[in-house]
Amino acid sequence: MKIAVDAMGGDYAPAEIVKGIELARDAYPDLEFLLYGQEEQVKPLLQDSTRIELISAPEVIAMEDEPVRAVRRKKQSSIVLAATAVREGQADAFFSAGNTGAVLAAGLLIVGRIKGIDRPGLTTTLPVLRKPDQSSFVMLDVGANADTKPFNVVQYAIMGQYYAQSVMHVSNPRVGLLNNGTEADKGDKAHRAIHDALSAMDEINFVGNVESRELLNGAADVVVTDGFTGNATLKAIEGTALSMLKLIKGEIMSGGLGGKLGAGLLKPVFKNVQSAMDYSQYGGAVLLGLKAPVVKTHGSTKAPTVKNTIGQIRELLASKSADQLVTYFAEHGDQMATLKESLK
Amino acid sequence: MKIAVDAMGGDYAPAEIVKGIELARDAYPDLEFLLYGQEEQVKPLLQDSTRIELISAPEVIAMEDEPVRAVRRKKQSSIVLAATAVREGQADAFFSAGNTGAVLAAGLLIVGRIKGIDRPGLTTTLPVLRKPDQSSFVMLDVGANADTKPFNVVQYAIMGQYYAQSVMHVSNPRVGLLNNGTEADKGDKAHRAIHDALSAMDEINFVGNVESRELLNGAADVVVTDGFTGNATLKAIEGTALSMLKLIKGEIMSGGLGGKLGAGLLKPVFKNVQSAMDYSQYGGAVLLGLKAPVVKTHGSTKAPTVKNTIGQIRELLASKSADQLVTYFAEHGDQMATLKESLK
Repeated sequence: MKIAVDAMGGDYAPAEIVKGIELARDAYPDLEFLLYGQEEQVKPLLQDSTRIELISAPEVIAMEDEPVRAVRRKKQSSIVLAATAVREGQADAFFSAGNTGAVLAAGLLIVGRIKGIDRPGLTTTLPVLRKPDQSSFVMLDVGANADTKPFNVVQYAIMGQYYAQSVMHVSNPRVGLLNNGTEADKGDKAHRAIHDALSAMDEINFVGNVESRELLNGAADVVVTDGFTGNATLKAIEGTALSMLKLIKGEIMSGGLGGKLGAGLLKPVFKNVQSAMDYSQYGGAVLLGLKAPVVKTHGSTKAPTVKNTIGQIRELLASKSADQLVTYFAEHGDQMATLKESLK
Repeated sequence: MKIAVDAMGGDYAPAEIVKGIELARDAYPDLEFLLYGQEEQVKPLLQDSTRIELISAPEVIAMEDEPVRAVRRKKQSSIVLAATAVREGQADAFFSAGNTGAVLAAGLLIVGRIKGIDRPGLTTTLPVLRKPDQSSFVMLDVGANADTKPFNVVQYAIMGQYYAQSVMHVSNPRVGLLNNGTEADKGDKAHRAIHDALSAMDEINFVGNVESRELLNGAADVVVTDGFTGNATLKAIEGTALSMLKLIKGEIMSGGLGGKLGAGLLKPVFKNVQSAMDYSQYGGAVLLGLKAPVVKTHGSTKAPTVKNTIGQIRELLASKSADQLVTYFAEHGDQMATLKESLK
């Protein structure tokens, strides 16, 4: 398995990316890497080039570049060259910590969609807290599309199910629709239509509507939603978790000696809490629905997360879930066409 | 000022509602109450009927009743009778902890909208954590409408601004649009249109798009959004805060002696954190855009929150913000018609 890596994307690129790829190379003997970046910057950082081929990419797509335009114009950038390597079969997956919009655009325009899938969905893994038999769930779309049609969300359920089976190893994942109440008739017309379509599909273990309040409690293994609501929900969870930790730390620091003593004794507890909420340990966000895995991690990614994410890509590749999706949508072309028509 | 109260709504009704109303009566000598409920249940609970008139409402709208149908059919219910008292001028505001949908429906169908306002917006106050000059913000709509048009969100900005001025006493409240990025061109067509309309309005102190990640950090004083996204965001914030507290407590309990000792010392810290996150202290959710305040608190409301919420209604009434909104929309009829047309 060969992974094309954008060495130039992210706040700590290229140093932490290169370091992370070397960690992953050492951890996974079955992996090879194509590392795209500015040679004069990347070459001095690479300590050992075993199974890592450095390929010169003179251009860089910056965080503030307009995504689609950058992908169209900067043909010699690490993002465009790495995605092109996947399209041309030189690599099996594409990894980047760079400009999210540009990574999504490169995935869509260069790697390409699976035939039959209208819109790929950005998929994130989030923690489930204190539930003995479930440690995480996936949610999609969390922001690849701002304009989502009901038909797209139904397709997200199929993609999410394959993903949960292959990467989370849940055999019969519970799929829930994010809605503003659990009753079947909740939400606007679009959500009622999605609910009814998912209920009617035998191949989906649909558990009905789920509310954002219950996600961290494990309401479902796969949560499907339009990209706008998914993005707002993901960022609300992130923001609240961070604010709560900051608040608690601030309260301790402004407390008296008792509080500070208590804080010392509670250090391991806070470490566990922080690690439970740190979903970067679950790897990056995957753009599902493309011919090959395209995975994006947070801009602030450092070497250990790069390594974990590569491990996640390795599982994705080993499970052949992209091939399974290709087969599914090839075999269900008529059903999808009927469904699309009925959801118009 | 006279407030019509639904004594029968909520998990702890009528006992905690009656207790809370008595607390409010003792705290605010300028308030009178019309208390609607089943006489045989409520009468024995009422210790002192000074400034509290008990009015018999033989029917009850249950939590599981279908809201609009219940409001139409149960004419002798506490919710319908209390809302009717407001419509007929016998009371100045309506308070309930009951079936949310029924309270919203009674507000809309019985109390009635302010002329010129298309859709009322459910408005909640949430805490801002650790910012010296801002302790809270308001967000609307958090779920009155599942189908929201851009024009409605623009009107929410005006309503929210009046509310922040009159209840939060912020003289020039910063209004933000909840979106999936802060740049002006973020979101779908509808959000770009709302952004442009708000930018063009001199009477709104519009600070642009805000992300749900930054709400608890005080990104704006008033956050406007469609009811579906607002509902998902509110519930994600609630759910994450509760899960974090549970997680931390669970980690402490499963830790050794050191952790438990630390927890003892940290008790005041947790108390502060819990109270900072407990937005019921800020009162109930207000359905803005009606001719008189209609306020709904959480079903689990107990007496102290009833009292706080009555205090909030008192401020709302004293500020005459409903009258100010009536005047604003009466004076801006032409502008609103043009805006509505342009946002179609």
